[in-house]
Amino acid sequence: MKPYVLGIDIGGTNTVFGIVDTRGAVIASSSIKTAKHNNIEDYINELYTEATRLIEANEATDKIHGIGIGAPNANYYTGTIDDGVNLPWPSPIPLARLVSEKFGIPVAITNDANAAAIGEMTYGAARGLKDFIMITLGTGVGSGIVINGQVVYGHDGFAGELGHMIVKRNNGRLCGCGRTGCLEAYCSATGVARSAREFLEVRTEPSLLRNIPIDQITSKDVYDAAVQGDKIAKDIFEYTGTILGEAFADMMVFSSPSAFILFGGLAKSGDLLMKPLRAAMDRSMMGIFRGKARVLLSELKEADAAVLGASALGWEAKPLTPPEA
Amino acid sequence: MKPYVLGIDIGGTNTVFGIVDTRGAVIASSSIKTAKHNNIEDYINELYTEATRLIEANEATDKIHGIGIGAPNANYYTGTIDDGVNLPWPSPIPLARLVSEKFGIPVAITNDANAAAIGEMTYGAARGLKDFIMITLGTGVGSGIVINGQVVYGHDGFAGELGHMIVKRNNGRLCGCGRTGCLEAYCSATGVARSAREFLEVRTEPSLLRNIPIDQITSKDVYDAAVQGDKIAKDIFEYTGTILGEAFADMMVFSSPSAFILFGGLAKSGDLLMKPLRAAMDRSMMGIFRGKARVLLSELKEADAAVLGASALGWEAKPLTPPEA
Repeated sequence: MKPYVLGIDIGGTNTVFGIVDTRGAVIASSSIKTAKHNNIEDYINELYTEATRLIEANEATDKIHGIGIGAPNANYYTGTIDDGVNLPWPSPIPLARLVSEKFGIPVAITNDANAAAIGEMTYGAARGLKDFIMITLGTGVGSGIVINGQVVYGHDGFAGELGHMIVKRNNGRLCGCGRTGCLEAYCSATGVARSAREFLEVRTEPSLLRNIPIDQITSKDVYDAAVQGDKIAKDIFEYTGTILGEAFADMMVFSSPSAFILFGGLAKSGDLLMKPLRAAMDRSMMGIFRGKARVLLSELKEADAAVLGASALGWEAKPLTPPEA
Repeated sequence: MKPYVLGIDIGGTNTVFGIVDTRGAVIASSSIKTAKHNNIEDYINELYTEATRLIEANEATDKIHGIGIGAPNANYYTGTIDDGVNLPWPSPIPLARLVSEKFGIPVAITNDANAAAIGEMTYGAARGLKDFIMITLGTGVGSGIVINGQVVYGHDGFAGELGHMIVKRNNGRLCGCGRTGCLEAYCSATGVARSAREFLEVRTEPSLLRNIPIDQITSKDVYDAAVQGDKIAKDIFEYTGTILGEAFADMMVFSSPSAFILFGGLAKSGDLLMKPLRAAMDRSMMGIFRGKARVLLSELKEADAAVLGASALGWEAKPLTPPEA
């Protein structure tokens, strides 16, 4: 097997790519601007030029086993981006075919959270685990579910949208998906900021957060205030962790994972989040599952995680079309 | 491959067993009383004697490929019943080993709902489906989850307890599992009877159900009244179907199945249940999943279903210990 994979993480602003070895070391990485080209072919051409430059500079020509790509709404089965909502090109985008034809290397694509799960399983906190759930706590809440060593894609390639489990059946917050009460509306960075606005309006105590214009409060502000002992800020983390822990207990009855692995800014809130999370998880857990699942933090360095996750998929990339006879 | 499997369904009262061929025909079946023997060895001996009698009478000696057993809380991984709550023997019961040693045939065991899922996949409504969820609506609500053609057992063998998803986060009904608000407390036969008692107490209209002592009302009584146009009884089905449909929408974001397959008495309620179920499912479904999953009824005859489901597992049974050299 060739010794390297190319990992590509496509975001709305930047496309980051890197050469990764079997042990998960990022040999070299670079990036281009995703939105620079209105035409997908021009984008692919620049990506090819820059990635080839990186590959040649690192003497990796003909040593790339496969290319793994993480992108929003990327469908593992079809190799397409079906709803590239933050991307400048019309959907569906036949991404795997375009990249594979340009590079002459097998390509596999999936969404960011699935890529993160594969990254943890290949190089990170989930090494040796066959059943776990990756939860990414960013602007939204993403998830990658691994059962018996395999990512769950579902019948259509879109499984694993646990950020859109309903956690408040009545009077829930409006979610970006158009429904109400989704986990993501509470336990994302955005959700924490919304909680801050709600708590500050409903409650009357003083709070450090009141020094910030209410519509500008971020989850980082809430964290900073909580670290300084601010009661309302701490209660917001209590509220967030509790909802997340209750949701984990519900996920447990589905696939009984041995671990939940957290990634993203909010995951770095330490005990502020983890204590109420673990307490709620224990309290809400069905008896036969109590105490069985660990809550772990990602072991991938944040700067490398997206490329690493995407790259891990490159190890299982297969040619899209049969090799010519 | 040998042409038959032996399916054994162990219930608290009866143990039913049958010889099944590759196409899912039950060649012959019989039963013994589960609770007759206080000693598990005596039970296994009688099971062996009676099953052997059946096998010999049907000229199936040496033609049994494997034995599949469905039993409450049976663990596929360990081959044991870890919490045989309705069985007369102390847990854990090393069932697979005992039966395999006695019969000299490979044995696989799993819980009733997983057995039902495998039965539908092998012989029934799920033939050809790789991603579906089996829901059994009986005294409780059981589930068997199939992803990519494989039953989900989870890290400990106990995955797929969807009857214990929390559907009412606040002020939910007490469930047999000790928690509150579980799906099973609402959408099982018992749950429908509980709804009847609640509705009759809270509402004041006349109802056919008021002719029955309130603590004796069954889900069948509610069905019969609804068929006769009784408003409260119809509302109970509306309530039940709505909760079930909302739960299905939540299951969808997890594994994106192409179908939900219903089995059990309540599943035969026709449009009374299915109309509100499908309406709630559509209404609650995340956009990308809307209209994708079918709701199907089991295609296994109820009298044969338990044995068929268990038997299907027999096709994949492997020897517990390596064959002697």
